Amino acid sequence: MKHRRLVAALAAALSIAAVGAGTAAATGFFSHHHRDRTEQGVAAALYNHDPQNVIFLLGDGMGTQEITAARYYQGVSNELNVDRMPLTGFDTTWSVKPAAPPPYLPDYDPDSASTGTMWATGQKTLDERISQGPSSAINVPGANLKTVLEIAQKRGMKVGDVSTAEITDATPAVLASHISLRGCQGPTDMGPCPLETKGAGGLGSIAEQEVDHKVDVLLGGGRNRFAQIIGSGPDVGKTVIQSAQAKGYQYVTDAAGLNGIKNANKPVLGLFNPSNMSLEWSGPAAPLGKGNAPAPCSENQRPANEPSLAAMTDKALDLLDNRRGFFLQVEGASIDKQDHATNACGQIDETVAFDQAIGVALDYQKWHPDTLVVVTADHSHTSQIVGEDAAGSGIPTGYSTNLTTKDGQTLSLTYGTAGYNPGGAPVAVPPSQQHTGAVVPVWASGPGALDVLGTNDHTDLFETLGG
Amino acid sequence: MKHRRLVAALAAALSIAAVGAGTAAATGFFSHHHRDRTEQGVAAALYNHDPQNVIFLLGDGMGTQEITAARYYQGVSNELNVDRMPLTGFDTTWSVKPAAPPPYLPDYDPDSASTGTMWATGQKTLDERISQGPSSAINVPGANLKTVLEIAQKRGMKVGDVSTAEITDATPAVLASHISLRGCQGPTDMGPCPLETKGAGGLGSIAEQEVDHKVDVLLGGGRNRFAQIIGSGPDVGKTVIQSAQAKGYQYVTDAAGLNGIKNANKPVLGLFNPSNMSLEWSGPAAPLGKGNAPAPCSENQRPANEPSLAAMTDKALDLLDNRRGFFLQVEGASIDKQDHATNACGQIDETVAFDQAIGVALDYQKWHPDTLVVVTADHSHTSQIVGEDAAGSGIPTGYSTNLTTKDGQTLSLTYGTAGYNPGGAPVAVPPSQQHTGAVVPVWASGPGALDVLGTNDHTDLFETLGG
Repeated sequence: MKHRRLVAALAAALSIAAVGAGTAAATGFFSHHHRDRTEQGVAAALYNHDPQNVIFLLGDGMGTQEITAARYYQGVSNELNVDRMPLTGFDTTWSVKPAAPPPYLPDYDPDSASTGTMWATGQKTLDERISQGPSSAINVPGANLKTVLEIAQKRGMKVGDVSTAEITDATPAVLASHISLRGCQGPTDMGPCPLETKGAGGLGSIAEQEVDHKVDVLLGGGRNRFAQIIGSGPDVGKTVIQSAQAKGYQYVTDAAGLNGIKNANKPVLGLFNPSNMSLEWSGPAAPLGKGNAPAPCSENQRPANEPSLAAMTDKALDLLDNRRGFFLQVEGASIDKQDHATNACGQIDETVAFDQAIGVALDYQKWHPDTLVVVTADHSHTSQIVGEDAAGSGIPTGYSTNLTTKDGQTLSLTYGTAGYNPGGAPVAVPPSQQHTGAVVPVWASGPGALDVLGTNDHTDLFETLGG
Repeated sequence: MKHRRLVAALAAALSIAAVGAGTAAATGFFSHHHRDRTEQGVAAALYNHDPQNVIFLLGDGMGTQEITAARYYQGVSNELNVDRMPLTGFDTTWSVKPAAPPPYLPDYDPDSASTGTMWATGQKTLDERISQGPSSAINVPGANLKTVLEIAQKRGMKVGDVSTAEITDATPAVLASHISLRGCQGPTDMGPCPLETKGAGGLGSIAEQEVDHKVDVLLGGGRNRFAQIIGSGPDVGKTVIQSAQAKGYQYVTDAAGLNGIKNANKPVLGLFNPSNMSLEWSGPAAPLGKGNAPAPCSENQRPANEPSLAAMTDKALDLLDNRRGFFLQVEGASIDKQDHATNACGQIDETVAFDQAIGVALDYQKWHPDTLVVVTADHSHTSQIVGEDAAGSGIPTGYSTNLTTKDGQTLSLTYGTAGYNPGGAPVAVPPSQQHTGAVVPVWASGPGALDVLGTNDHTDLFETLGG
């Protein structure tokens, strides 16, 4: 208890220091332009109890190259919302390989399922695995692991899960389902997971489990997964949508429907696209070699009937806000998907849209200071910012795109982690690019945010998020 | 003054909190394995006056992929020294392009000269420029900018500059010279800088200027630059080595000579290789496509007569330690050079050797807590950690190396920012790879270290380092 008192005194002292920071420049101490923000951030981070609310935002594949590309495209003087977050660190993201018997040895290039299981459950696992532990082979189910969302529910908090991907994709899935292979998303996708259908005594597909979890707010793409007919268990013969409605879910399929939801006492299932949600922008393809003549991205491409990630985040916060607190996950999923696809404008637009969702979360935090906000990525990815003046054999070996930024300069991105063609030029149509293994950036603000400082492992986030 | 008192109270409170941290786990608050370290680090960082000593360590080209590759090669459970540093952030590193008239517009892929000028002087400048401002063209000299080393000297502090590169290379050069083009390293290298020879009324080559600055400790490679004969000015006809000796420098050329230096009252010039210093390890080349059969690096390749970077750092600290304080820069230069060369073992060994130098700095700080230690990179680079199981067109387009790590697993690195060959397979002998533009990691500990938190620009480091 002595320690708690000390931390309380410290938090108080820091609050006063933050208020006094305006006078600091005159003394020459703490006179950097960012020092006020740092002091205020540290003060909030030392707040002496667990946060009431936790907002976790995950930019899929948003490594240091990706966040920098989005920042530079918007203009070097144009601060991103994430730049308002004062506490920063790095997380390692290695997963493990199957083994019998253990130990499970490191895999240096993980996927979103294994890394999602890390932050959602605090445990290392195999690639493709959703909140289950490792095992002897990828198709042998592991032990089900308790998730931060389940723990929050047990504490009486409301919970939300939002993504621009199918809401059954790996990142949203790790919070509210347990399955050996990430592909088992809907009732008729269960072929690779025969031991885990409800008929076989399992928990069923990811879509079924998310609904069974009674997640208060489920918003994203993936309508086709939920339109599949359940083949076994108590809801046999129903679609997952019908099963959800029978459990009391309010079901919407477009932006207007989402806006119209007024009842925060019944759960909400919003499925805004049959598959992944639409991109915000479009832009030039990435040819081999030097790439296209520089051009800006074409903005405002998202159909109006699909809500933006920021709008989904805003509505989720409206619905989740309550005296007992909440846990909300928000994924900017297509940063990764467009990095795989060598689509520079798509990757950047999804990063910018994700950053707008971060802005919504930080604005909520401003009026609800008892809220922890954590932002990170699940793994690094392919895109690299290279020299616009490269020539001859100094040009990258892969696929390149040249974009005209808001500063009117050329931002050159290259993608080369896939495309090999023995003895010849890399294949003309770029194949899906690989994830990469670098540490990912982590940003945080609010009570508990000091946890992310330094170099940690992605499994450490579990405890930070309330696990 | 009110603010100073508050910060003093806060520092005191934090010191007590750090002592009490051992009891925290029992309360469930601050119970993460890294929380003790974070609290202690924050306490030290709030220390209420400017640090007496500053140690700045720069890993050239050490982006997030490079530091992760070194960490993973050493084993996922084997903590690096840099992981002991509790305060972390990200820096943008864009440079600017020539313009007449200004504004100078952003260049997203900088070099070590422009980024060095950022942290050394707080100003943006052109690539290839050494502590001069931007101008209308790269061969038109800019204004000379005051450096953190010069400011430290003016305050009566001792100063040191250490690198595994030629000590006239861009990073060490930005502290103690001002010249329009980084190539003008020795007296006979001044062809591209005709207006800046001493005969033309300029400051002379980088080697001449470093000696003229009377830097107390200058250790690294580059003996051939200093063996060049000075063509104009007061020391005409002498080599730069002779000029240094005439100014009182103690001159040594090998590890034994460095060990033998006992007199800290006279400056030291140690030049341990005619060019860049030797690498610590060797290893497999990087062929196109999938790469070599996995193999470990061959360690212990450095000739015994060349000191390690850690040994140079240790000796520099011995010589610089004094009551009025010091500023020391230590560069791990060949991380960048071996990344350019697609030499995975060389890149990793130089990162590990740099980390050992960080360990020496942190050990010094432990006994001299009035020391700020800052570690960063000057720009990101090419190497990427990719999947060891890639096959077919899922294999990278560039040059790949497979290393067997200390954990017995395969770490696959690929390099593909140069090597394009129109219509055919990328060129067989990999050309020099490009820098990349991602934000770089920053680590800090000690008084003033809070400055590095969050997302900042590399120019902000100038003030952190005492500018």
